Amino acid sequence: MIAEILSTGDEIRSGALIDSNSAYIAQRLEEIGFPVLRHTSVGDDVDIIVSTLKEIGSRSDIAVVTGGLGPTTDDLTAEAAAKAAGVELKLDEVALSSIERFFKRLNRPMSETNRKQAMLPEGSERLDNPIGTAPGFMLKVDRCHFFFLPGVPAEMILMLSDKVLPRLVKLRGIDQSYFLVKTISTFGLPESTTGEKIADLTSAFPDIKLGLRAKFPEIQIKLYVNGDDENKLNDLVEKATEWVLEQIGNRVFATDGSAMEEIIGRLIKEKKATLAIGESCTGGLISHWLTNVPGSSDYFLFSGVAYSNEAKINVLGVSRETLERYGAVHEETVKEMAEGARRLSGATYGIATSGIAGPDGGTEDKPVGTVCIGIASPMGVEGRRFFFPFGERARNKQIFAMTALDLLRRKLLGA
Amino acid sequence: MIAEILSTGDEIRSGALIDSNSAYIAQRLEEIGFPVLRHTSVGDDVDIIVSTLKEIGSRSDIAVVTGGLGPTTDDLTAEAAAKAAGVELKLDEVALSSIERFFKRLNRPMSETNRKQAMLPEGSERLDNPIGTAPGFMLKVDRCHFFFLPGVPAEMILMLSDKVLPRLVKLRGIDQSYFLVKTISTFGLPESTTGEKIADLTSAFPDIKLGLRAKFPEIQIKLYVNGDDENKLNDLVEKATEWVLEQIGNRVFATDGSAMEEIIGRLIKEKKATLAIGESCTGGLISHWLTNVPGSSDYFLFSGVAYSNEAKINVLGVSRETLERYGAVHEETVKEMAEGARRLSGATYGIATSGIAGPDGGTEDKPVGTVCIGIASPMGVEGRRFFFPFGERARNKQIFAMTALDLLRRKLLGA
Repeated sequence: MIAEILSTGDEIRSGALIDSNSAYIAQRLEEIGFPVLRHTSVGDDVDIIVSTLKEIGSRSDIAVVTGGLGPTTDDLTAEAAAKAAGVELKLDEVALSSIERFFKRLNRPMSETNRKQAMLPEGSERLDNPIGTAPGFMLKVDRCHFFFLPGVPAEMILMLSDKVLPRLVKLRGIDQSYFLVKTISTFGLPESTTGEKIADLTSAFPDIKLGLRAKFPEIQIKLYVNGDDENKLNDLVEKATEWVLEQIGNRVFATDGSAMEEIIGRLIKEKKATLAIGESCTGGLISHWLTNVPGSSDYFLFSGVAYSNEAKINVLGVSRETLERYGAVHEETVKEMAEGARRLSGATYGIATSGIAGPDGGTEDKPVGTVCIGIASPMGVEGRRFFFPFGERARNKQIFAMTALDLLRRKLLGA
Repeated sequence: MIAEILSTGDEIRSGALIDSNSAYIAQRLEEIGFPVLRHTSVGDDVDIIVSTLKEIGSRSDIAVVTGGLGPTTDDLTAEAAAKAAGVELKLDEVALSSIERFFKRLNRPMSETNRKQAMLPEGSERLDNPIGTAPGFMLKVDRCHFFFLPGVPAEMILMLSDKVLPRLVKLRGIDQSYFLVKTISTFGLPESTTGEKIADLTSAFPDIKLGLRAKFPEIQIKLYVNGDDENKLNDLVEKATEWVLEQIGNRVFATDGSAMEEIIGRLIKEKKATLAIGESCTGGLISHWLTNVPGSSDYFLFSGVAYSNEAKINVLGVSRETLERYGAVHEETVKEMAEGARRLSGATYGIATSGIAGPDGGTEDKPVGTVCIGIASPMGVEGRRFFFPFGERARNKQIFAMTALDLLRRKLLGA
């Protein structure tokens, strides 16, 4: 089966927006056994969308299209799809009442232009959008099954998982083999070192295809395998995962695709423990990550984002003497911050960060990229110092935050 | 002149890598008057690359191609280009000695595979690569001038600027025209309402092309214009921006593409004021955004992320009575949180959030999507309640945080 991806929109065509949707869709399709042959992006031009749909329709079996389902005049995808299939647009009553409900919940009048979003090509199958106004739809053009989704990433991701992938698995039929993808998430080694450590995997497991993906700041090891016997595939992947764990050791933090903050949540819950944070250079990012996990209020008690020295003293209880003697970026300071956050909130564990994210504030002694991390637990408190050479504020915040969570993870595991 | 972009490589085709090169190239081409018609990505497959080059060659005037110029066996672009043009590959002596020099500088032996990189299609024009081993080249296939560049972003960016754009300006000839894009950032109106309010723009300013982009939770209005006289274009865009401001009013928060947190930073600095935050449901996201701005330590003093009631009481000084009488999600509670954060850190302004991000915790009275926001200033403190129907934790955190910052922005502006 040949698969393609089409993204539409002037913002992508003109380069104002980087098209991350297409990469995401390609990965998800590949995981269920539909390698993508090509990606195309075109602007908000109905004739060009029509001719591109026809082109793809003549050469591919399935295609996922994103963008152009919004309410405005430059949202032209439904119109173009109808033209390409040689059908009319028709009001979909279910889609309309779903849009009406959306605005009712919002307590806002529905605008007349939103009605346009309920106009779907005749003969198409509606794909409900649970979190936005734009419904998607499936439509056959020539030999190809097209799945039309909104361009808003959160809506696209949800609808791809819930509406598109299950239909594709059905389309693929039962004569097809199984595809398994295992994601092993690591943190703390460079991509090249990670690759070298597991270079022999393909000779030890010749049926497994190996992929490395840098998803800053983690490095994911991907194992791809396909065949007829699902149980055998599962066994094989399990053995290969064991093998990888032997090579990479405790740099592996998840073997099920979970994010670091989910792993932390699980470990903390298992111990029936609680957590508090004192953040300086990470500026709230650790708290933001931790609270992205539903149910985190069970164990996450408090974070004090203390940028100023006064806040470190007044809120987190760092002693003025320590700050004056060692400065804000120091092992002793983060130890007091971690202990302060823990004491203040009565949490079992406390972690703290203080460092120099840049672009300014670096010195010869403590260049941009320096971070100190404190971890406090009922067993005591320790402070450590790290340096990362990325030299860019956003990346530094991310790798500082990830390093703090990884230290906590290892502490929780006793590893 | 019709322009296209082609990126090659299995890592892009399979989605392992997001193709940011194409967006960059599209922007640079558009700036010098070559709007890009479409982007295509294909894998490392010589037949598919050949047929794609022929396709583009038959319909476009210029194309920039990235990737596949490396030394390995899956670097196939030069071979494919030669096939598409019906010529042979030929050793380019200048390219070879440049690659040899590269390895000499590095003090490493040159590998035999690197010799392959000096093989260019007959009749092509070499484009030197000052920082890598892969030379690029220009080659005409059918009616189209193709510029082949390496996929490594740093090399591509340099060669595009130094080798490709000057040649394109020459190709274009003297009918020079300028392109301007203006971004007007708004928050607080749905995309459809925003579109309706400015629907008449194109009749008031027929030379301006209008685009709307939902960059959740903001809506960006984009004005595109091109012509010969740069000053006239600037005047026109300025007038159109004024017109948009009249229609949208204080929902516009930036007219230079700035993020909300940058605007807040500027306004706070202008007032020589400082800021503190008490976050519950936003879980650190407001602090994270604010501290993404370099120099934010000048005005951002402290954020207390108080998920638990105890932390609201002990750290932010909310009274137990208020929490017992009204609950955590209430105007009175966020007023005390905002005032507490302000008092604790000595900041000029305090803002606070408490709400229900979901997926759990909603009640009939306070469903998922409810948020209360408090704003404290030297003039007093106020609390407001909002409801958003997105029903999804990550989006709720974002729109809650943005709403809080937007209330602060309007308070700072007195608007």
